Amino acid sequence: MNEKMLGLGKSRSVIREIFEYAKVRKAEIGDDKVFDFSIGNPSVPAPESVKNALTDLLCSTDPVQLHGYTSAQGDASVRGKISDFIEKTYNIGSKPISSPNLIYMTSGAAAALTCSLTALLNEGDEVIVLAPFFPEYRVFTERTGAKLIPVLCDEETMRPRIDRISAAINEKTAAVIVNSPNNPTGVVYPEEDIKALTSLLSKKSKELGKPIYLIADEPYRELVYGGAHVPYIPNYYDNTIVCYSLSKSLSLPGERIGYVSVSPRAENAQNVYLAVCGAGRALGFVCATSLFQFMMPMLLGETSDISIYEKNRNILCSALTEYGYKTAKPDGAFYLFVKALEPDAKAFCERAKKFELLLVPSNDFGCEGYVRIAYCTSEEQIRNSLPAFKALAESYL
Amino acid sequence: MNEKMLGLGKSRSVIREIFEYAKVRKAEIGDDKVFDFSIGNPSVPAPESVKNALTDLLCSTDPVQLHGYTSAQGDASVRGKISDFIEKTYNIGSKPISSPNLIYMTSGAAAALTCSLTALLNEGDEVIVLAPFFPEYRVFTERTGAKLIPVLCDEETMRPRIDRISAAINEKTAAVIVNSPNNPTGVVYPEEDIKALTSLLSKKSKELGKPIYLIADEPYRELVYGGAHVPYIPNYYDNTIVCYSLSKSLSLPGERIGYVSVSPRAENAQNVYLAVCGAGRALGFVCATSLFQFMMPMLLGETSDISIYEKNRNILCSALTEYGYKTAKPDGAFYLFVKALEPDAKAFCERAKKFELLLVPSNDFGCEGYVRIAYCTSEEQIRNSLPAFKALAESYL
Repeated sequence: MNEKMLGLGKSRSVIREIFEYAKVRKAEIGDDKVFDFSIGNPSVPAPESVKNALTDLLCSTDPVQLHGYTSAQGDASVRGKISDFIEKTYNIGSKPISSPNLIYMTSGAAAALTCSLTALLNEGDEVIVLAPFFPEYRVFTERTGAKLIPVLCDEETMRPRIDRISAAINEKTAAVIVNSPNNPTGVVYPEEDIKALTSLLSKKSKELGKPIYLIADEPYRELVYGGAHVPYIPNYYDNTIVCYSLSKSLSLPGERIGYVSVSPRAENAQNVYLAVCGAGRALGFVCATSLFQFMMPMLLGETSDISIYEKNRNILCSALTEYGYKTAKPDGAFYLFVKALEPDAKAFCERAKKFELLLVPSNDFGCEGYVRIAYCTSEEQIRNSLPAFKALAESYL
Repeated sequence: MNEKMLGLGKSRSVIREIFEYAKVRKAEIGDDKVFDFSIGNPSVPAPESVKNALTDLLCSTDPVQLHGYTSAQGDASVRGKISDFIEKTYNIGSKPISSPNLIYMTSGAAAALTCSLTALLNEGDEVIVLAPFFPEYRVFTERTGAKLIPVLCDEETMRPRIDRISAAINEKTAAVIVNSPNNPTGVVYPEEDIKALTSLLSKKSKELGKPIYLIADEPYRELVYGGAHVPYIPNYYDNTIVCYSLSKSLSLPGERIGYVSVSPRAENAQNVYLAVCGAGRALGFVCATSLFQFMMPMLLGETSDISIYEKNRNILCSALTEYGYKTAKPDGAFYLFVKALEPDAKAFCERAKKFELLLVPSNDFGCEGYVRIAYCTSEEQIRNSLPAFKALAESYL
């Protein structure tokens, strides 16, 4: 047996542990008495248009075509429409930033990441991630034999620290993963950060005589509030690979549909793409689920009702600030990253539990002393939880 | 970049090469003049019950639940119903051969195989496959750092040769993959073969002081004709891991839904299962597509209309035999494995092309001198192709 895989199967993530505790606790004292902010599972339903698109496809398409193998990289017409959408929506220059022949349809963003990382990495390579980061980046990277190098963001703003990233780059650096809007901080990296980061990567690539690829993990692209702008990175950096998913924007996390888009401006773009296809083949993906592939072009640009998340954010943010909590500016995703009221985030979460508040300590995100609050819950839970947050803060006075 | 992944992305399979040739040739001389027997893509549509089950789910289930993350191993109630079905349908003993807590829902059989192999294997291990075999077994096995050991079946019957398997087993042997009904031969291994093979594996496991796991790859389980019986291997061998898929039985190859079922009788069953879960996590699967997970229990035991394949088989078999071709007894799947009329299968396929017959040479299946004929085509194509098969045979007289 493979002991590493056994270890991964045995170790539940902290988030899952809390989720299981929530189930037990709710059975004890009632659903509405437990304030579970642990899991990033969209609470807003998929829009009616998802149901309509799927039933249309089921009723009007030849089942042999609808449910048959697509080509391994995805149906050609689907890829064409996605590329058109990317060009129309995000391209701010004149040269293309996508191509139907460089899009690879995947089972969600996780598969997009594992295929991209498996394509790029060799034993001993290094992958820089901006901490705090989504913990599965470590699992996906280490499986390839490469090493994960977390580089801490600014402790106040949770924006990238270019000086620290510069110091971390060396001849082993193969890729940098950028996730904005960010899980777990909810921070959207502004254009000046993207410009500074990509300038650095261009300079370093030149110095090292090899491309450092930027993997843009973008499942939260559409989840932004108050008019925040999410720069589309291929406009700023040629060696970009975008990993995308409908999980969060259309509330379809269980369906596993997304894509990898290699920029046509990237060095060796065609070979990077073929290596992604090869990785997909070796990992056993065959093709992304065909029904959801065919659905995707029918819904490009649509989202579930994200005003619900925005309202949750606003209620929670202003209350927590009033109670004395400190948080980075949360313009996107559905997370708040709040400074714990004592140095040890785990101890803080244990105390929060006494107030029936279930928060995730920041340690597994690669940074200490914070908690993640996933506010993709009901507005009712948010409102009912406020006295508990207030009491928790007061317990530290 | 990872050169192995690039290599896998660049090398199209022989089958895909022929498929691409078919498209070009059809455009030149007309669809009905080209007899393409290359691809194992089900030609019989999914039954109406698939559409009904999916539209029912879409119209009657809360979308947050229907499209949300299931637990990583799959929805608990889905796993329960699958286990019940396995017990009721296949168990011929008194002790269970499946458990809801040992079923892991996957994106089809390919994912079931990569998760199982990644769970079991370490660098330097060996995996025995019975040749001829599905070529992707090599890709899936070698990615883990293990070695594929093909063991040739009997050249006439294409049934396992126990003496050869016995000679191939050594202390490095971690697993044996068994695929019955078989791709590419269409042979169903009779109970006496399963008994002989599993006795050998029990004896060798004992001698070696460690379990040799049997991976039963069963996407063609239901595709059998003339009353052929497919023994359910967990009844015969404790250390069995079943990999299953709806791709072929319900004509849903693009949708990617299946499972791994670890036998509760297996040594370290719980740890094998956890390692499978860990592998799924590391490879980026997250969960199998939730809509198709929920569909599966609604359709257990159903198939698309396989009498169509049986008719194709009967027409083709009796005609080819009459023309002097030799084939192993094809009781299942939708393949015939026919002895080439000259030693070099590739040369034979090139000559067949002159008669517009597109056949797959056996070399990539790990055995020389045969061709695979996928008869999951229209009956019309079968009937129209017969004069060409006759003329091809006569060209060797």
